[in-house]
Amino acid sequence: MRRQITGFSNPTVKLLRSLRDKKQRRLHQRFLAEGLRLLTDAREHGRLPEMLVMAEGRDEHPLLQALEADVLAAGGEVIETSADILSKITGKDNAQAVTGVFAQWDTGLAQLDRAAAPIWLVAQALRDPGNLGTMLRTGDAVGAGGLILLDDCADPFGVEAVRASMGAIFTQSLAQASWDEFSGWLRQGDGQLVAASLAFGSQPYRGATYQAPCFVLVGNESRGLPAEYESACDMHVTMPMRGSADSLNAAVAAAVLAYEVLAQLSPETAISPR
Amino acid sequence: MRRQITGFSNPTVKLLRSLRDKKQRRLHQRFLAEGLRLLTDAREHGRLPEMLVMAEGRDEHPLLQALEADVLAAGGEVIETSADILSKITGKDNAQAVTGVFAQWDTGLAQLDRAAAPIWLVAQALRDPGNLGTMLRTGDAVGAGGLILLDDCADPFGVEAVRASMGAIFTQSLAQASWDEFSGWLRQGDGQLVAASLAFGSQPYRGATYQAPCFVLVGNESRGLPAEYESACDMHVTMPMRGSADSLNAAVAAAVLAYEVLAQLSPETAISPR
Repeated sequence: MRRQITGFSNPTVKLLRSLRDKKQRRLHQRFLAEGLRLLTDAREHGRLPEMLVMAEGRDEHPLLQALEADVLAAGGEVIETSADILSKITGKDNAQAVTGVFAQWDTGLAQLDRAAAPIWLVAQALRDPGNLGTMLRTGDAVGAGGLILLDDCADPFGVEAVRASMGAIFTQSLAQASWDEFSGWLRQGDGQLVAASLAFGSQPYRGATYQAPCFVLVGNESRGLPAEYESACDMHVTMPMRGSADSLNAAVAAAVLAYEVLAQLSPETAISPR
Repeated sequence: MRRQITGFSNPTVKLLRSLRDKKQRRLHQRFLAEGLRLLTDAREHGRLPEMLVMAEGRDEHPLLQALEADVLAAGGEVIETSADILSKITGKDNAQAVTGVFAQWDTGLAQLDRAAAPIWLVAQALRDPGNLGTMLRTGDAVGAGGLILLDDCADPFGVEAVRASMGAIFTQSLAQASWDEFSGWLRQGDGQLVAASLAFGSQPYRGATYQAPCFVLVGNESRGLPAEYESACDMHVTMPMRGSADSLNAAVAAAVLAYEVLAQLSPETAISPR
C-alpha cells in the first residue's frame, strides 16, 4: 500500500521515531535501516522492509523503484513524507532519502548451524554499537557464519550498529545469549573457543593452531573478559603490543585475529601464491 | 595556580566548552582530553595539560595528585568546579572527574623522522573521528612512527578521536598534509607506499613483500582512494573478501595490513616460535 504522511504528529511518525530507542525497538521488535545502499543489500539477501519511508522530491533511482515494487508485492507499505519529517524520524539534519522499517529476527543460538562456517565471532558485553557493526562487517569479509553476543552487549539493531555493519546485519547470523547458554551450546558439538587475551600464558596469535569451527572471542572494551570465561577457553592468543598501550580496539582485535584464522583455515584464498 | 569556578558564565567555562568545536580548537590551538587514565598516559609521555579541570567532591587518587603537582610545577592551572559545570564543559551527563586542556602541537611533515619506525599509517580524507583515533591506537600497538593525515580528514584533536586513541594521541607522531606535500616529502627519501586497495592488479596482502619504512595508506570511508593517489603507490594489496561486502572498515583494514607488515618486518615479535 502507498500512502502519504504530512503531519509531524502522525502515529506512524511517532512509531518510527521511537525506534531510535532500544527499549522501543525491543518492544516493537522492529528496527530502522537508512539509505538506498543498505536497503538494496538487504533486498539482495532476501530481507525486505515492512515499510519504506521516502522523502518527496527525491531523485528517482532504478534500485529504489525495484525496492518499492518488491515491498508492495510483499504486502508492505511505501510511505512518502517531507524531508523535514524524515529528518525528524532519523534524527539527522541531512536524512538519507529513504529509510526502511524491518522486523527483527529470531536470534537464538538454536538458529545457528556451526558447521556452516569455519569462523564465528563472539563479543562479550561490547558496549559500543559501532564496534558491533564493525564486527558484523568483518565477519562478512572473513566468511564467518555470524556474530554471537554474550551478556549485556549494545543493541545490534540500533541505527549506529546497523550503519557500521554496512549491510552485514542482513547477511551474518546473529545470536544473543548468556555465557551459560553459550558455553552449554558450544560444548554440545565441535568448536574451538579462542580468546583474544592479555592473560598469562597467552600465545602469539600468529602460529597458534586454529581449528574449524573456530569461535573468536573478544571481551568488553574496558574490562576485557571475565576470568571465568577466560579459563573456559580452549586457547588464549595475543597480538604484539609494541607501544605503550596494552590492548587494541575490540573490533580491531577481532579482525586481526579473524584474518589470521582465515589464512590458516582457508589458505588458498588468504595467502598470495609465491 | 589553583582556582575555583562557580558560575556557568565564567569565561574559562565558555572557552573550554568551545573546544568541543573544531573551528574553535583550530583558533585556540587547544584541545580537551578527558579522564584520569588518558591524562596519566599523557603525563607519562611528557605531555602535560596547561589546565586541569576537576569536579569538587571527586575521589582522591594518587595519580591525580601527581598530575596536579606536575601541572602546577609547570606553571599550569588547576581548576575546581561543580560536577554540573564539568558536565556542561564536556557535554556529557556523566562527566569524567577530570579534564585537561592541552596545547596542540605542530603537525608538519618536517617533524617526522621516517627512519625512526618501520611502519607509518597514512589516512586519506577519513571522516570518522573514531576511525582516526583507532588508527592512532593501532599505530601505537604495531610500533608505528605515527599517523599522517592527507587532505580533509576529521580532526584528530576532537574529543571522540582523542578518546578512541586511548592515549596514542600522546605517543604517536601526527602530521597533516596535502597529497602533493606528502608525495613530495615521501620521494625525498626511502619509503614504500602501500595502498589497501580494491583496484585491478592488487595482490593479496599476505605474502606481498613489505619494506621499511612502509607507509600503509587507507582512503576515505565511502570513496576509497582517488585514482591519482592509487597510481602513485608502490604496491596495492587487498584482503580476502569472502562475503557480499567489498570492503572493510578503514581502521580495520589499516590494522589487518599493519599487523601483516609487522610480522614481516619484525618477525621475532610477531610470530610464535615453533
